[in-house]
Amino acid sequence: MSTAVTAYAAPSPKAPLERTTIERREPREHDVVIEIAFTGICHTDIHQVHEGWAEGIFPMVPGHEIAGVVAAVGPGVTRHSVGDRVGVGCFVDSCRRCEYCRAGEEQFCREGAVWTYNARDPRTDEPTYGGYSTHIVVDENYVLRIPDGLSLDEAAPLMCAGITTYAPLARWETGPGSKVAVVGLGGLGHMAVKIGHARGAEVTVLSQSTRKRDDGLRLGADHFHATADPAVFTDLADAFDLILNTVSADLDLDAYLGLLRVDGAMVNVGLPETRSALLLSTLVMKRRSLAGSNIGGIRQTQEMLDFCARHRLAADVEVIPAEQINDAYERVVASDVRYRFVVDVASLRE
Amino acid sequence: MSTAVTAYAAPSPKAPLERTTIERREPREHDVVIEIAFTGICHTDIHQVHEGWAEGIFPMVPGHEIAGVVAAVGPGVTRHSVGDRVGVGCFVDSCRRCEYCRAGEEQFCREGAVWTYNARDPRTDEPTYGGYSTHIVVDENYVLRIPDGLSLDEAAPLMCAGITTYAPLARWETGPGSKVAVVGLGGLGHMAVKIGHARGAEVTVLSQSTRKRDDGLRLGADHFHATADPAVFTDLADAFDLILNTVSADLDLDAYLGLLRVDGAMVNVGLPETRSALLLSTLVMKRRSLAGSNIGGIRQTQEMLDFCARHRLAADVEVIPAEQINDAYERVVASDVRYRFVVDVASLRE
Repeated sequence: MSTAVTAYAAPSPKAPLERTTIERREPREHDVVIEIAFTGICHTDIHQVHEGWAEGIFPMVPGHEIAGVVAAVGPGVTRHSVGDRVGVGCFVDSCRRCEYCRAGEEQFCREGAVWTYNARDPRTDEPTYGGYSTHIVVDENYVLRIPDGLSLDEAAPLMCAGITTYAPLARWETGPGSKVAVVGLGGLGHMAVKIGHARGAEVTVLSQSTRKRDDGLRLGADHFHATADPAVFTDLADAFDLILNTVSADLDLDAYLGLLRVDGAMVNVGLPETRSALLLSTLVMKRRSLAGSNIGGIRQTQEMLDFCARHRLAADVEVIPAEQINDAYERVVASDVRYRFVVDVASLRE
Repeated sequence: MSTAVTAYAAPSPKAPLERTTIERREPREHDVVIEIAFTGICHTDIHQVHEGWAEGIFPMVPGHEIAGVVAAVGPGVTRHSVGDRVGVGCFVDSCRRCEYCRAGEEQFCREGAVWTYNARDPRTDEPTYGGYSTHIVVDENYVLRIPDGLSLDEAAPLMCAGITTYAPLARWETGPGSKVAVVGLGGLGHMAVKIGHARGAEVTVLSQSTRKRDDGLRLGADHFHATADPAVFTDLADAFDLILNTVSADLDLDAYLGLLRVDGAMVNVGLPETRSALLLSTLVMKRRSLAGSNIGGIRQTQEMLDFCARHRLAADVEVIPAEQINDAYERVVASDVRYRFVVDVASLRE
């Protein structure tokens, strides 16, 4: 009642990943079988393997930035057909009944969304396995359409890095006339620059050094500042409507919040492991907000993919074979990637 | 070119307040001379005398919750007439040209609002003196109308405590169907309960103990919980759309933020003197916000006064003669007031 497929897995916490075999279920009535072409490497994958947030389920097959082609469908599937180009993001199911699921914000499901890996499918209690594998079987309602014009390798990172940055840029209504700062120019940050620019906002990159300055401007930023220079925090006081913080390191929040104008918001999408400190008066005196945002629902993820196709933008990727995943992890931790590693899953079929 | 009036002032930092004489300017063309009837004692007054935030200007005459009657007007005044019941809040002037002044949010004036006391009038460089005095002279555009039906003693605290709580309850669109928690049942908190209830929200008081439970329910709260009981933070998880935090003590922000549902906001109106810590993931995982709010502009303060009159609500006050101000300060610090001390300024005329 299941099929063995090749995968790349961490056999135990913090261990290097290695080639292995996992089982994928036979398609249920509404399931789509996807032949995976590319899977992005998200910093979250490394955190999960290293049990940075919580205990993990091992062996662990990471990967929640999945792009591929439909290979088969269950008898009840109406939304996708064999041969369609599709994607899977951070979750593969949810309760479908709570107010959040009904509102299309399945990431906030009251019973907990079923994460694409390192989780258990509540129907079977079996662990979920992610995209570092040749195939995945997912309910059709949790599968995205990848529009024509987006290549599968460059589209894969949109499933997490794309929606993680698109969602706050949409929710905080950025567009012509708004001034947006993007903190950090990594996998998330480079998507925030592209999407913010495409929405018509004036985009400023705040990076530790000027090392990535040329890239930042090429990606669509209007301005680029190195935060190692403390003058930035006085010169740009009260300058921004939105600061999108993509880094998980502990920042001097008061310094960054001071860059927001009245009613401005600093929205965090990273997940630092330690507490951050701030003076509440920094918020009070100018009615500022410190907020968080977490991926997006299926409906908005599809909206984001359609937006990216319309604006002819996707991720800047470095494609690697599965055998280089462990090296890539080290380079991600060292911020040595421009801007997203994508595993060529064909390398798992050899 | 000025008139000596009786006032109650702190002669030096942290010193007890004492009776003294200050000068009030002759009314300029657009000035209103107000004979003060009552002035509320705000915790801010004590902070300023104690130089809790910054160095002060001494002698200091505190008081920015002022209610009185117009005694004279300058020749160009059109908005107020002799005999009108009027109020003055936290500021008495601003640049009138910047985008915030033009938008009626003078509290955010780019050149800095001119605070009612412990500031300098930029036209003359003279210090400003607050409402612990028999008269004040203020430009007509910074004077509020106190509607019929509000008594002057109960209206005085609305000028700061009223607008400070009304503004976030309006901005975060509380009303029928919204669940609001008010942290702290003091001068600000008791107004938040009354106004939140009048707006139609379901109001919960979160207080340290159950000591003020009966009061909380009488003031309009639907529920009352003592935060000394840790079960509150599990029982009420994900319960509120808005938490209005009126206390300046350092709270466990993560515990309170955990009480917010998806998209909920915790809005602070107090000004702690030390940094607060939080896990940003508490915000990220449910798209929550931690925000601040600071009084309101003249237009919204008038709107608040009209709202209070329409809903027949005002502050619960304990009226004292000026000679008891120093004792009242001690009782405010000890949270021993239900719910606002108001100085009967007639006592300064004796």
